[in-house]
Amino acid sequence: MPELRWGPLRRRWVIVAPERGKRPSDFRAQASPPGQGTSECPFCPGNEHLTPPEIARTPGPGGWAVRVVPNKFPALSDYPDLGLEGQGVFRKANGLGAHEVVIDSPDHARDLDRLPLEQVRLVVDMYIARLQALYSDGRFRYVQLFKNHGREGGASLAHPHTQIIATSVLPSEVEWRLAAARDHHAATGRCLLCEMMEEELSAQVRVVEEDDQFLVLSPYDTRFPFELLIVPREHAHDFPALSGEERASFAGVLKRSLARLSSLLGDVPYNFVLHTSPCGGDWPGIEGWYHWHLEIIPRLTKLAGFEWGTGMFINPMSPEAAAEHLRTAV
Amino acid sequence: MPELRWGPLRRRWVIVAPERGKRPSDFRAQASPPGQGTSECPFCPGNEHLTPPEIARTPGPGGWAVRVVPNKFPALSDYPDLGLEGQGVFRKANGLGAHEVVIDSPDHARDLDRLPLEQVRLVVDMYIARLQALYSDGRFRYVQLFKNHGREGGASLAHPHTQIIATSVLPSEVEWRLAAARDHHAATGRCLLCEMMEEELSAQVRVVEEDDQFLVLSPYDTRFPFELLIVPREHAHDFPALSGEERASFAGVLKRSLARLSSLLGDVPYNFVLHTSPCGGDWPGIEGWYHWHLEIIPRLTKLAGFEWGTGMFINPMSPEAAAEHLRTAV
Repeated sequence: MPELRWGPLRRRWVIVAPERGKRPSDFRAQASPPGQGTSECPFCPGNEHLTPPEIARTPGPGGWAVRVVPNKFPALSDYPDLGLEGQGVFRKANGLGAHEVVIDSPDHARDLDRLPLEQVRLVVDMYIARLQALYSDGRFRYVQLFKNHGREGGASLAHPHTQIIATSVLPSEVEWRLAAARDHHAATGRCLLCEMMEEELSAQVRVVEEDDQFLVLSPYDTRFPFELLIVPREHAHDFPALSGEERASFAGVLKRSLARLSSLLGDVPYNFVLHTSPCGGDWPGIEGWYHWHLEIIPRLTKLAGFEWGTGMFINPMSPEAAAEHLRTAV
Repeated sequence: MPELRWGPLRRRWVIVAPERGKRPSDFRAQASPPGQGTSECPFCPGNEHLTPPEIARTPGPGGWAVRVVPNKFPALSDYPDLGLEGQGVFRKANGLGAHEVVIDSPDHARDLDRLPLEQVRLVVDMYIARLQALYSDGRFRYVQLFKNHGREGGASLAHPHTQIIATSVLPSEVEWRLAAARDHHAATGRCLLCEMMEEELSAQVRVVEEDDQFLVLSPYDTRFPFELLIVPREHAHDFPALSGEERASFAGVLKRSLARLSSLLGDVPYNFVLHTSPCGGDWPGIEGWYHWHLEIIPRLTKLAGFEWGTGMFINPMSPEAAAEHLRTAV
């Protein structure tokens, strides 16, 4: 069963989930490529019996348009409690959490960039429904929505899907990002992302797309070639609180951003990662200083020793050059 | 020319080094595999003219035993100054630094695990000579020694080599790790790694190897399957200050640790990363609370959306199980 571990040297929680691989020989062999066929694909229509029992579905012509199932190899799972305990300088806890998979559509071959806008809107609605359900569970500290696409992106199944992991501890990266926004607000009285957007709109060299509701940026401190940052123009700390109109607009900007990448780079492996408000009330005034955003990370470069040691990424593409390519890519 | 960028949302420095890749089409194509032949290998004897002018060498039978050359595509390079400037909420600076390659031996095919111990000792001596030279430069804040092995480890050349990058800013990961050790010492009066070693020696479930001078651990908060941590048993903050006897002992423990991994996992891609004291005197009392260590990271799992979003790694192998495999692997 999965377990949480924390060490004082790196001050990060990790998840030890031994079910996911057991003997050294399991690691020697290359992971098999994501299956191409649809007959054994557990996410294809007709194979619903191959997944664990369904959590939610959006009805559609062939039965469903979007489906949510538990991850068959969950990184975290159900426990009576967190069971946090110290072990000398270390800490451990039960791997309490949830791990769900959103199957984006019945279509085995088309990712969000090539699905009809109405389908992407249904997917966004489902993201929000599941985030709301997990946020209201009461046992979790954070809910992470993310997508892994392509082998290099960490996907183990080809059929397009998105994942949601709810954690019972506040992850380090989330904590640091919250602290950065809070500290900026404390020092300047301003929301960091509101101010950053103002600067980007005035500089206009890293703006990829702007409409009334969203800004798409090639980040100034870009870590990866063609990395993208989607930010709502109106200050909002909480992604699941999007209105109906905003959801439609977000579906469009997400689809177009992914289409820019695939138009420029082909079927590029990528991750996208939502950064939104955590669960619970540990961050007073968060409505005023946190601003949700979504990062899209094409996986074209490799992390290596320098990045592990220093946390500094080496990006072979300037954000200004990337923005120029991306602006004209759709 | 490389540039440093810093953003307030992630509070990390990144290196933007556009020479390393230019057009989107350069990213579409898969990187060519590390060359297998030795005739065009710039690190093989006889091809010395294919590298930039040599920085240092250890004499050997065929001319040299270890060679140090500048990286042909440096992540950081020479500038008159750092040229730090704010740009609204952002900061940028010149990509001032140094990027060197240590060619481990004339042997194209043998990594440190299979080189004679005396050769590994020469490599360690060269690491220390170059670290000392860069530490005394006066313009740098940190010097990162690391090795990328195998394609998944980020190596672009097959001939075994190690890299050294000197940075003119203190990298975020280094700062966090220093702060963790300093805070632990402030709270308890003890060195974090000294205390951790005591606990590990008493628990004995994650110890892979111990001798009089070094302890090899499978870390409690393990991020990667078969990750290893090498720690000097006697408190020491500064790797380059190793005595001659300690260097010989370190060469042995490094060689054996890598041999454990290859015996268990074959020619496994990996990174190793040295964590040692930074340059300059910004950390009062560091001799008392920092403790150098080296991490070896086999690259068997992929980082994906969850890790980017949360900073939490998912490890399919418990450190206790990994230690058991690794102990018996040589």
